[in-house]
Amino acid sequence: MDPRLLRLLDEASADTLVSADPGLVRMLTGHAGEIAFGPSPFQLPAIVVGGRASAAQLVCATDEAPEGDHVHGYPGFVVTALDPVGGARAALRSALGVAGPGRVLVDAAHVPLALADELPGATEAPAEALTRACAVKTDSEVAAVEAALRLCEAGHVAARSATAEGATELELWSAVTAAVEHAAGGRTTVMADLVSGPRTADVGGAPGTRRLEPSDLVLCDLVPRPDGIWGDSCATWAVETPPPGAEEMHRSCRAALTAGLDALRPGALAGDVDDVVRGAVRGDGFHYPHHTGHGVGFHWHEEPRIVPAGTAVLEPGMVVALEPGAYADGLGVRVECVAVVTEHEARLLSRHPLGLDPLDRGTVA
Amino acid sequence: MDPRLLRLLDEASADTLVSADPGLVRMLTGHAGEIAFGPSPFQLPAIVVGGRASAAQLVCATDEAPEGDHVHGYPGFVVTALDPVGGARAALRSALGVAGPGRVLVDAAHVPLALADELPGATEAPAEALTRACAVKTDSEVAAVEAALRLCEAGHVAARSATAEGATELELWSAVTAAVEHAAGGRTTVMADLVSGPRTADVGGAPGTRRLEPSDLVLCDLVPRPDGIWGDSCATWAVETPPPGAEEMHRSCRAALTAGLDALRPGALAGDVDDVVRGAVRGDGFHYPHHTGHGVGFHWHEEPRIVPAGTAVLEPGMVVALEPGAYADGLGVRVECVAVVTEHEARLLSRHPLGLDPLDRGTVA
Repeated sequence: MDPRLLRLLDEASADTLVSADPGLVRMLTGHAGEIAFGPSPFQLPAIVVGGRASAAQLVCATDEAPEGDHVHGYPGFVVTALDPVGGARAALRSALGVAGPGRVLVDAAHVPLALADELPGATEAPAEALTRACAVKTDSEVAAVEAALRLCEAGHVAARSATAEGATELELWSAVTAAVEHAAGGRTTVMADLVSGPRTADVGGAPGTRRLEPSDLVLCDLVPRPDGIWGDSCATWAVETPPPGAEEMHRSCRAALTAGLDALRPGALAGDVDDVVRGAVRGDGFHYPHHTGHGVGFHWHEEPRIVPAGTAVLEPGMVVALEPGAYADGLGVRVECVAVVTEHEARLLSRHPLGLDPLDRGTVA
Repeated sequence: MDPRLLRLLDEASADTLVSADPGLVRMLTGHAGEIAFGPSPFQLPAIVVGGRASAAQLVCATDEAPEGDHVHGYPGFVVTALDPVGGARAALRSALGVAGPGRVLVDAAHVPLALADELPGATEAPAEALTRACAVKTDSEVAAVEAALRLCEAGHVAARSATAEGATELELWSAVTAAVEHAAGGRTTVMADLVSGPRTADVGGAPGTRRLEPSDLVLCDLVPRPDGIWGDSCATWAVETPPPGAEEMHRSCRAALTAGLDALRPGALAGDVDDVVRGAVRGDGFHYPHHTGHGVGFHWHEEPRIVPAGTAVLEPGMVVALEPGAYADGLGVRVECVAVVTEHEARLLSRHPLGLDPLDRGTVA
């Protein structure tokens, strides 16, 4: 049994967890459900039933489920009448039967109301406890984050290669998706900010039709999800000549990122790491309105959240993205790397280029 | 008040509908929520509260909400402690207050269990009633589907242009996404099948690393969602020379599609339309294991479902995709068009190329 689930159940004096959060489903069953097309008319989201006595059980439509001992399937894509709720109810009942009797803890933010009748007397799981359960990764999960970060690199290199006066943000974005999906060998969800020029001052945004000008910055934050595990990465570069002020902002962010990576040690308090990074940028006369960082892997934003007064205590195995920024009138810079906390320090996992020079290719060939 | 909502409430003897289905949210509020990145740690899905006495109310995080009289927002992307459930509960309470007292009908497949306490005594909405409510479109909604179909065309033309011996499915796919997003002027969710060669026999699948061979078929089904409204489209073409049998299969599917479009008339029974199309293909000695078609717009698959013994009765304003296929050993063909049912017949909305000849560009420049 996963020790993270055991701890969660112990804390809540419960015997079984029921969640429809794709992150918890991935963590406890290995199943990476499709998330990119919204709710399906044919099925409910995949559900994990994690009990003390048995392996975690997966409840999902048979289209989605890998065959296996622990899968409770129901009809999905059919030409007959649709009844995903009825199917999911029966399959959940079957999974709860395997998990055995006891107190049920339910992830009520993700489990649909339609399943309430199968969960009489269930206790609502505290959201913080659920997200805390995902914070520490196993070695193979860290390796999966690293695989996602290799896609980040491919995307950043492609965006830089496509950077040229007159190119649109969307043209850079198309280069990103082509490179990421080629590197992944298949379709891959990528959340992203990709903005240029004055739009960089707005912290983020989706790529649009704006055409790059020689003195623009490009701010690119790529967050891919291969195999149900998220990576994260940000860099900011000039199209040709950095606009006035950009070099100072970029230097400040790079220094703050380095200081933050140094501060990622077991026992460190998230709020203290936030202070180090945010304070470094502020000391240079700059400012960012967002978090300093966050855990990443099962979700694109999870514990430990690196925020002012953040109470999370860093532990070995936590995977943390740090992303200091500096934003001014009509101008914004952000850099972001991911590291895993080890026994004594943190090991940098990111390798994408961070330079303001558009020709920087980092350590990628 | 939307007459489709009124009918739904009347049928259920209810006064207020609460749904977190993106399709119903789009229909009743116009809000096109983001669906592409799975559940957010910062917010619950957008929720519509539709009552008899007032305009439909939108419950969502302030990051997502357009400012407006009918929006009940709660904090989303914050650096302080996260509490999307608490925020959504309070905002839902506020929206229910505007809707006024009365019997609440809840879309329990989509509303999270965490909101149950705000919905005491609510009745679960029958799934068929919810999906039936979305079947008939207004003129402006039909125009929105047409806008989505223009993106389908751009994608199909791009995929055909990229078709060449040695190209990978993913290379065609990258051409599709670049063309669709360029035509849309922004990031756009596109669900898709894009398979080649023997993979076409499997009905569908995501693009992969397979390289095209001269005698391959390419089967491409593109389902984009600009502005919260889905389009749909399929075509099958040869890389160079169609493999033996492909022309007969393609001719059969084209003829069945034409017969199906002729059968789309007000008053027609979905099961009868299915018979016409499926029967035409079967009469040629071919077969497809999937639905003949479906409504499309608020969802990528909705009423009227064109399936064997389907009981939906066609009405003006229904937007229907028909997609006959023919699958054999190592070979598959499918063609799909979308039409809107009018007073006496159906008007074809699709314009993407359908020919087996890879150089077919349809009516698109």
